[in-house]
Amino acid sequence: MKPVWIKHAKELATISGENGPRKGKDMSNLSIIEDGSVWIEDGKIAAVGTTEELEKQYASRANEADIVDATGRLVTPGLVDPHTHIVYGGSREKEFEMRLEGATYMDIMNAGGGIHATSRMTREATEDELVEQASRRLDSFAKHGVTTVEGKSGYGLDLETELKQLRAAKRLNEQHALEIVPTFMGAHAVPREYKGNEDAFVDLVIDEMLPVVAEEKLAVFNDVFCEKDVFTPEQSERILEAGKKHGLTPKIHADEIASYGGAELAAKVGAISAEHLLKASDQGIEDMAKAGVIACLLPATALFLREEAAKGRQMIDSGMAVAISTDCNPGSSPTTSMPLVMNLACISMRMTPAEALVAATINAASAIKVEDRAGSLEVGKQGDVVMWDIGSYQELQYLFGVNHVDKVWKKGQLIVG
Amino acid sequence: MKPVWIKHAKELATISGENGPRKGKDMSNLSIIEDGSVWIEDGKIAAVGTTEELEKQYASRANEADIVDATGRLVTPGLVDPHTHIVYGGSREKEFEMRLEGATYMDIMNAGGGIHATSRMTREATEDELVEQASRRLDSFAKHGVTTVEGKSGYGLDLETELKQLRAAKRLNEQHALEIVPTFMGAHAVPREYKGNEDAFVDLVIDEMLPVVAEEKLAVFNDVFCEKDVFTPEQSERILEAGKKHGLTPKIHADEIASYGGAELAAKVGAISAEHLLKASDQGIEDMAKAGVIACLLPATALFLREEAAKGRQMIDSGMAVAISTDCNPGSSPTTSMPLVMNLACISMRMTPAEALVAATINAASAIKVEDRAGSLEVGKQGDVVMWDIGSYQELQYLFGVNHVDKVWKKGQLIVG
Ligand SMILES: [Zn+2]
Ligand SMILES: [Zn+2]
Repeated sequence: MKPVWIKHAKELATISGENGPRKGKDMSNLSIIEDGSVWIEDGKIAAVGTTEELEKQYASRANEADIVDATGRLVTPGLVDPHTHIVYGGSREKEFEMRLEGATYMDIMNAGGGIHATSRMTREATEDELVEQASRRLDSFAKHGVTTVEGKSGYGLDLETELKQLRAAKRLNEQHALEIVPTFMGAHAVPREYKGNEDAFVDLVIDEMLPVVAEEKLAVFNDVFCEKDVFTPEQSERILEAGKKHGLTPKIHADEIASYGGAELAAKVGAISAEHLLKASDQGIEDMAKAGVIACLLPATALFLREEAAKGRQMIDSGMAVAISTDCNPGSSPTTSMPLVMNLACISMRMTPAEALVAATINAASAIKVEDRAGSLEVGKQGDVVMWDIGSYQELQYLFGVNHVDKVWKKGQLIVG
Repeated sequence: MKPVWIKHAKELATISGENGPRKGKDMSNLSIIEDGSVWIEDGKIAAVGTTEELEKQYASRANEADIVDATGRLVTPGLVDPHTHIVYGGSREKEFEMRLEGATYMDIMNAGGGIHATSRMTREATEDELVEQASRRLDSFAKHGVTTVEGKSGYGLDLETELKQLRAAKRLNEQHALEIVPTFMGAHAVPREYKGNEDAFVDLVIDEMLPVVAEEKLAVFNDVFCEKDVFTPEQSERILEAGKKHGLTPKIHADEIASYGGAELAAKVGAISAEHLLKASDQGIEDMAKAGVIACLLPATALFLREEAAKGRQMIDSGMAVAISTDCNPGSSPTTSMPLVMNLACISMRMTPAEALVAATINAASAIKVEDRAGSLEVGKQGDVVMWDIGSYQELQYLFGVNHVDKVWKKGQLIVG
């Protein structure tokens, strides 16, 4: 593979300088280099600086490289999506239409819709089919400037299907340019057959599923849907503590629908991140800030569900690190557009353009523990880079609803443009 | 130019059959042909039908044509954006950032921001500069599947600059593939020098501007911002009636911020469309339905300003024809994405996927009087066609925030893809 030399970027937003997530006021600093330049070699970033600096260093090797003129353009790290349910079977656009035509929740359930529809279609799909469908979603992520995503299981709700989802993710890592960081989420919903007997399902997750997932090294994280009428904080804590014993780092879907102690639990168990947080209490925000939990906020989901977005502004002002994500899933956020999510972070959560970009790069990378190799343009990290067809990070958020991606490199390989 | 033969569309949404805007329940019918086919010749649609039908008709001429395989794809008419302020000078992304960093309205005014900033920058720009900037915006519209836009003046607020904007639109029509349908909107805001003396400015618009615009045939429509603290219904009526005498069809920015009688006035003066309508009264909706006024709704603007979107559902249920638009402008909706606007029509206004597509095609075309040549796939109309990289109109709205455009033809010429 030839080296890549990107030259003359109007704004090279390196987002360098922190070892880990940026918190509070530090989220505003993009470490921009004007007339910036990056040299990528052997899949990694070998040098970052002004074009003048890199010309001194690489002039003699210029003829070896693919040279890319970024004049007038913004260049950033590849975006990271730290929360997706990308591996699932089937599609639910007909249900979306039914709902808009006036069908009630019960109509849709009776027509076989809702999360149980996805669960059924995921159980019915072969591993090959899951790989093929998720692969197309990864292509769409790439077109939108994303080079790394997290991906959760959780539509199986039985051991076999959970393993099938995670094995599909593993195969995608072998055959697709993008990286999926896998999360086990056996406790994503209560299966119908366990309604009223939730503790037995929690036992099943802990005793039957977690050991196999850990044994086969199929996941890095262990996630749970802690919510009223789903899993209680006590049940969630049992699952997350059990995962820790197997070496899985806790994540938690918390306080999406009601304030239910999920944020507080995230702090208590030392979760790397807490997700959604639309209804997180002030105490919960304070606890998470103290414990260093990353808030993973999902404003596209709030838009799609017509809910008030999470208090991103308040969380940053409380000193937290905020990450943002599509929440890509067939029920509440069927989108693959991190650019739209950044726009919504500004529009709906009053984050600044710089904060939104940090939330989608170094903080997102930190929320899924890939900050050693992704999320910023620094020597030694992967050559994951996006060139945009606009000139500033402000335009990236202001000219909203538009995918401004021009070219994308993953580990130094041109995958879009 | 070679003929174009698009074959085997999974869904060919012709949206044919009505001569004019579709109202109420008629907005749900897309007249879809499965395994559909279109033959475009000399810039116009020569035949529409199933692939089988067109194969009988055109088999002997197949070798003359550019053949496009649309297997698995949705094909629709080119989208029409019936409300833009596309011709303006400067850019305001820095102001967007200031606002998110906590600047107040007065801070921004003191820093020279707001609509008066755009007015100043438009006055300062040369006609060439306006053409060049708007041309890039038209390119972005095309990438998002739009083949015709309306474009308003209204940042000049003096005769010279209003004419400059409209002449720029005229030149764009000569040099860009897309069509701009021009609207005079001298009464877009009250210039600072006329504060407290609004009637004198209304006189200026009527006596000095309208005659020249009409004489030079620079506009088809005459629009006014009827709103509390801008122009009263009485002033608006005077302007719109004066325009009618010059042959300009009335449009009206109505009831965006407060319920102010704008919808009622639209019905009274026989406006072709009324814009925004966030606060339109029930009486206003009833009046517009009776008078056949098209509601032109702008959900991206509502999103950007964090306002409740207009009552699209209620308007359709009242028998109105609804059109949708980006409202592309630097202050309240800096986007060029009609696909996002369709998504928001569903998400924020509870329109169905089919209604959103009708609102962005035949109804949008009717709102700017180009339904004789655009807005549907029917023999004799322009060859304005979009092929999408998805298979159904439901997916077009459900997989939101993503630009699914694959190829775009304007008058039979491939302009995207
Ligand atoms: Zn989730
Ligand atoms: Zn407007």
